[in-house]
Amino acid sequence: MKTMILKGDICYSKTKKTLACLKNGFLVCDSGLSAGVFPTIPEQYRRFPLKEYTGKLIIPGLIDLHTHGPQFSLRSLGLDKELLDWLEALVFPEEAKYSDISYAEQAYTAAVGDVKKGPNTRACFFGTVHTPSTLRLMTLLEESGLVCRVGKVNMDRNCPDSLGEASAEASETATRAWLGQCDAYKNVAPILTPRFIPSCTDDLMRRLSAIRKEYGLPVQSHLSENLREMAWVRELCPESTGYADAYARFDLLGPETIMAHCVWSDSAEIELLAQAGVFAAHCPQSNMNLSSGAAPVRKLLAGGVRVGLGSDVAGGVHPSIFRAMTDAIQVSKLRRIQDAEDDPLTLEEAFYLGTLGGGAFFGAVGSFEAGYEFDALVIDDASLAPPFPLSLRERLERVVYLSEDRHIIAKYVRGAPLF
Amino acid sequence: MKTMILKGDICYSKTKKTLACLKNGFLVCDSGLSAGVFPTIPEQYRRFPLKEYTGKLIIPGLIDLHTHGPQFSLRSLGLDKELLDWLEALVFPEEAKYSDISYAEQAYTAAVGDVKKGPNTRACFFGTVHTPSTLRLMTLLEESGLVCRVGKVNMDRNCPDSLGEASAEASETATRAWLGQCDAYKNVAPILTPRFIPSCTDDLMRRLSAIRKEYGLPVQSHLSENLREMAWVRELCPESTGYADAYARFDLLGPETIMAHCVWSDSAEIELLAQAGVFAAHCPQSNMNLSSGAAPVRKLLAGGVRVGLGSDVAGGVHPSIFRAMTDAIQVSKLRRIQDAEDDPLTLEEAFYLGTLGGGAFFGAVGSFEAGYEFDALVIDDASLAPPFPLSLRERLERVVYLSEDRHIIAKYVRGAPLF
Repeated sequence: MKTMILKGDICYSKTKKTLACLKNGFLVCDSGLSAGVFPTIPEQYRRFPLKEYTGKLIIPGLIDLHTHGPQFSLRSLGLDKELLDWLEALVFPEEAKYSDISYAEQAYTAAVGDVKKGPNTRACFFGTVHTPSTLRLMTLLEESGLVCRVGKVNMDRNCPDSLGEASAEASETATRAWLGQCDAYKNVAPILTPRFIPSCTDDLMRRLSAIRKEYGLPVQSHLSENLREMAWVRELCPESTGYADAYARFDLLGPETIMAHCVWSDSAEIELLAQAGVFAAHCPQSNMNLSSGAAPVRKLLAGGVRVGLGSDVAGGVHPSIFRAMTDAIQVSKLRRIQDAEDDPLTLEEAFYLGTLGGGAFFGAVGSFEAGYEFDALVIDDASLAPPFPLSLRERLERVVYLSEDRHIIAKYVRGAPLF
Repeated sequence: MKTMILKGDICYSKTKKTLACLKNGFLVCDSGLSAGVFPTIPEQYRRFPLKEYTGKLIIPGLIDLHTHGPQFSLRSLGLDKELLDWLEALVFPEEAKYSDISYAEQAYTAAVGDVKKGPNTRACFFGTVHTPSTLRLMTLLEESGLVCRVGKVNMDRNCPDSLGEASAEASETATRAWLGQCDAYKNVAPILTPRFIPSCTDDLMRRLSAIRKEYGLPVQSHLSENLREMAWVRELCPESTGYADAYARFDLLGPETIMAHCVWSDSAEIELLAQAGVFAAHCPQSNMNLSSGAAPVRKLLAGGVRVGLGSDVAGGVHPSIFRAMTDAIQVSKLRRIQDAEDDPLTLEEAFYLGTLGGGAFFGAVGSFEAGYEFDALVIDDASLAPPFPLSLRERLERVVYLSEDRHIIAKYVRGAPLF
């Protein structure tokens, strides 16, 4: 099942700035891993079954480093507000509904269905504080075939009673109980998820830091998204030298940490993120919709920070990381007008961020080089063709800007077909 | 045929800042004009045939004030360049191909098909310099049922020999010959289309100004899109006080003039546009893709300029004016970060710009008030519904952000069904 050859027009990122493109190539999947891309089928793979996608585009699955499962229901709503007001008015009341498992069942079924039919093969999800609903999200994702990290959210301050956890101790207890129920999954795994500094007491952060070490867990949270949020963090953490430092003090930054946004990270924060090996999840659409700003992606990359893309539903409206790629390019062009230092992102760079860049969080993911996990999309782009021939690189560009979910005719994750 | 009642959930702009919304309402079309929206069917319309769209959203058709027919083939390509380099490298060579009528036939058939299935009911198209191809575009648009203004482009300087017209006189002669063949259309009409100042000699502008008066024609062109373009205009027109003034000197600005972009219009230019009654076509996606900037829409509106939205294919990649609405909102949010004076656009305002705002160029268009021409979309938004009830206004918001062409189940223009 997980051993086969895909024939078609193959594109993937070689480096941040270069694509590998092969027309009529053969992409070999051996037991769920890529064995590489070849112009003819190598002798040792001759007996593998051949999937014929001649004329179709074959690319790696896309990686969403930051999204919120319970907010799919809120997409497009309340976007006249900025972050903190939007959380209060829309997000917290919506997330409180997930204490009801039947509501969660309905909403998460729709959300997972949306992601399954789109181009993303892997994602890091925030759930809510509720253990049963978060487990339900994990089960639905496991059934979908997507490979995901999912976090039960921790929050014990500055949120309504209907949503917040009663104490740091209660949050720790619930988190440990949740972690005890996560072993059954094959493609889905837990990730520690303190919502953000304003939602978590120092006591809670210390407990989460201990859990992180005990379980060897990755961490996801939010960083330097919005100016009012940042002023609040300075008030809450007067001893910290900056927002990232407020996490670092609890030893929550490391090579398995994702920090979403980094819109206002300064050079000191960029250095801290780079040194710790943190992944920055760039969420350009959310940063526009919530009037957060245009993140300094060029500076993050130049500073050595590992960067991937995030849809950040429902700050972002569209789950597709194709959309995040074009949003990232467009926002970088507007940013350049304010900051002439920062060259806009190229298509190659945006594609890299949405595949290899974010994929690195999941290990050897986001490429077709030999040894990478086999996540692949097959895209029928015939209806997008102009009346003149396009290079493979131009076809990829067109797919990134113009394709819809319906153009994806096959999707493989770890070598298994999702459809 | 053009007399009927549509039953459904009806939304349209009342003013720039307010929507009229009626659930289970009746929208009456009397001989191609709206007779208004009613909670029950008024006596005098009882015998009109009823179209049952209960539960569906019914809104006015969307208005695209600025797009380029021959550039649909270029969508997504070359967007690493800025305006002038992109014109040289991609647009001019592509437009030169339209000297071949069979190429034009193929490309324009695809382009018109794309627009027909989307939410726009009216548009202003740039063609190319070529009369036969431009007439072919007009015929295809006429057959589609869309209501359009289409321009044979004028350009007699600063463009490759393969595309430019031989002289101002040759351009005038061709334009008069083209206008002589435009009477056969019902839904499509000509619009005078000097490409932009850098492409047109003073001699040509004087001739076009005379044609404008002789035929009573509207005019479309480009204004203050890109900083390098503007510097070039200053060089070319040292006697002008500004870019808009360079058009005004030939008496080309008036209440039937559309100027696309206005990204860098200063307060003097805004005043000139307002006084002349010019329509500004705001093209936010194009302005991002070509690194042009974030247009001062708030200042244009406050200054009394009439504003509509444009897709500006292929500076913009997406023909849908729904996309232009969300792009306009998003870009205005990023602009606010640089310019705190300019509040972001609201959903109501963006929807107004894409319906009534641009519709005013076509007359009484873009509303369901009695007397307006009957352009309507029926949208099945059931698959976009979250697990809680939405207000009509929220459903509209969701459709604007999330709908695709496939959600449009019926489209009427001047009372005639397109599908």
